[in-house]
Amino acid sequence: MTRIVLDAMGSDNHPEPELEACLQAHARWGDPVTLVGPAERLLPALAARGAGPETVHLVDAPEVLEMTDHPADAARDKPRSSMAVGIDLLKQGQAEAFVTAGNTGGAMATALFRLGRIRGVRRPALATVFPVRSGRAILTDIGANADCRPEYLVQFAIFGSLYAQHILEIPEPRVGLLSNGEESSKGNLLVKETYPLMQASGLRFVGNLEPKEFLSGKADVLVTDGFSGNVMLKTSEAVSSFLIDLIRSSIRAGVATSLGGLLARPAFRKVSALLDPAEYGAGPLLGVDGLVFVGHGRSDAHALVNALRVARQAVESGLLPAMRQAIQARLTPGEAEAQP
Amino acid sequence: MTRIVLDAMGSDNHPEPELEACLQAHARWGDPVTLVGPAERLLPALAARGAGPETVHLVDAPEVLEMTDHPADAARDKPRSSMAVGIDLLKQGQAEAFVTAGNTGGAMATALFRLGRIRGVRRPALATVFPVRSGRAILTDIGANADCRPEYLVQFAIFGSLYAQHILEIPEPRVGLLSNGEESSKGNLLVKETYPLMQASGLRFVGNLEPKEFLSGKADVLVTDGFSGNVMLKTSEAVSSFLIDLIRSSIRAGVATSLGGLLARPAFRKVSALLDPAEYGAGPLLGVDGLVFVGHGRSDAHALVNALRVARQAVESGLLPAMRQAIQARLTPGEAEAQP
Repeated sequence: MTRIVLDAMGSDNHPEPELEACLQAHARWGDPVTLVGPAERLLPALAARGAGPETVHLVDAPEVLEMTDHPADAARDKPRSSMAVGIDLLKQGQAEAFVTAGNTGGAMATALFRLGRIRGVRRPALATVFPVRSGRAILTDIGANADCRPEYLVQFAIFGSLYAQHILEIPEPRVGLLSNGEESSKGNLLVKETYPLMQASGLRFVGNLEPKEFLSGKADVLVTDGFSGNVMLKTSEAVSSFLIDLIRSSIRAGVATSLGGLLARPAFRKVSALLDPAEYGAGPLLGVDGLVFVGHGRSDAHALVNALRVARQAVESGLLPAMRQAIQARLTPGEAEAQP
Repeated sequence: MTRIVLDAMGSDNHPEPELEACLQAHARWGDPVTLVGPAERLLPALAARGAGPETVHLVDAPEVLEMTDHPADAARDKPRSSMAVGIDLLKQGQAEAFVTAGNTGGAMATALFRLGRIRGVRRPALATVFPVRSGRAILTDIGANADCRPEYLVQFAIFGSLYAQHILEIPEPRVGLLSNGEESSKGNLLVKETYPLMQASGLRFVGNLEPKEFLSGKADVLVTDGFSGNVMLKTSEAVSSFLIDLIRSSIRAGVATSLGGLLARPAFRKVSALLDPAEYGAGPLLGVDGLVFVGHGRSDAHALVNALRVARQAVESGLLPAMRQAIQARLTPGEAEAQP
């Protein structure tokens, strides 16, 4: 049995999408999902759906995180929030992965405070699956570390590479470094200092890549600092939505083009599905000592089931022990001793 | 008469688009364009088009820049290249602006070596006009300075703001700072240190902006370091082209959708034109002591005429003296004396 915990209070429309996702996940895999949230509110909702403990395993978490709570403070001061209780289940060995559609900063702060980092990890990173011409690839860090050192980026590359192996099932992932030019002489200071470390890393390093090369499929993992990665991800989302709105309004502006748009609708639907983050499940926190996945606040039940699927895949393929081992194997004897 | 110099050897298909652009520009504005390049090659081509000196003012530049020339070396070692000769015309007061579709790094190196910076400028920047929901806006730096200090970004904001006034004709441009979140506490170290300087700058600072907010029209100028700006620009271009290819191939995959695509074609054309860099003319080098514009290597005559139009507008609106004055006005007495 794979034990996955779902935060009942994560998504913008919680807890309905979460309740629905539990039922769908149980129908699909047979294992009960562990749902964490205020029992007082969730019990009647589960009863109304006829979901007993063999379908959904409920764990009470009566405290609610408010929008005004600072993530780091809440991680410490609200130990009975659904995020804190859910992540504690990983620490206590009562579950193998935690999924939430809640605040990313809150999930990172809570995971760091309650689980800590994998031994030897300098900084945990956020990653996302990015649609590229050849299929899918990993972009990391997308926002956990606005300022980075070269050693962090090498660890992000290790995490990203393992994630591509375990989740995208790519045996030897190609790793690129985001830069403002492909030549090894290009980049800011961080990129220039990271380049030789990547070459010496034992990873399948394919050099500096511009966004165009990454989107064309030249790498399975693109590594960058959390500021540039966030700019790349957010620009990509904003440009897609801008372009689709532009096309839609231009099509609607004429009678013939409107008819054309109607006929072409299945093609637009196909493209939307390809770009829909809901299809990729949730993004992992890489480097914390437990499997934690954060989905989009707008997640519906379908998106949450995809997130649960990715979490199962991570558990069943042994992603966490693989990350622990990969980091451990690269520590110098001094570093290994210096670790707490 | 406004005297604009065009590099005959800039575009990928040079000199044909450049020759054609000279004729179109003369027909449009009456002033002859100064065309710089190897006379031996250009004279017969001009004669074949019946273009005499009242249409195109030819200046000989017999040296050719090779792909293997390093930009900085070429700026110094090939003083008779079309870029060097053209930019020297500005220095000698024989022309007011220089337009090239050649290599951006080469243009920057040549302009810096031959014209120098405006007195008081820390680092020149590259800017581009970016399509946004409300119309057009300026993004700077898009690649001249991969590593920046906060003071540089404030100067980029001054340049960008003046460029938006003079070229986009926006009287009081709103200036945003690219960040990974809108709150003033967000950003990398550079953004956090730049924020208070922007607040104190006297510019119309609207705070930190994410790509989505910028694209939605919340600022007329977005300021960032050359690495992040390059990532944002290149991601935007790559995602647009990826998305358009995806839609095209999805439409072509079915009979009904193909027919729909045919009917909707005018709408797609409208969107392509809105996003086409050729419509925005060329990007300026901001902070060098002369008006230098660099267009895309793929520029055709239409794009080059747009670039010549923007260059004329910059000359006629007094962009260069305005930049000189804005920088001078902000120098402390000590800085003003320390300048060469």
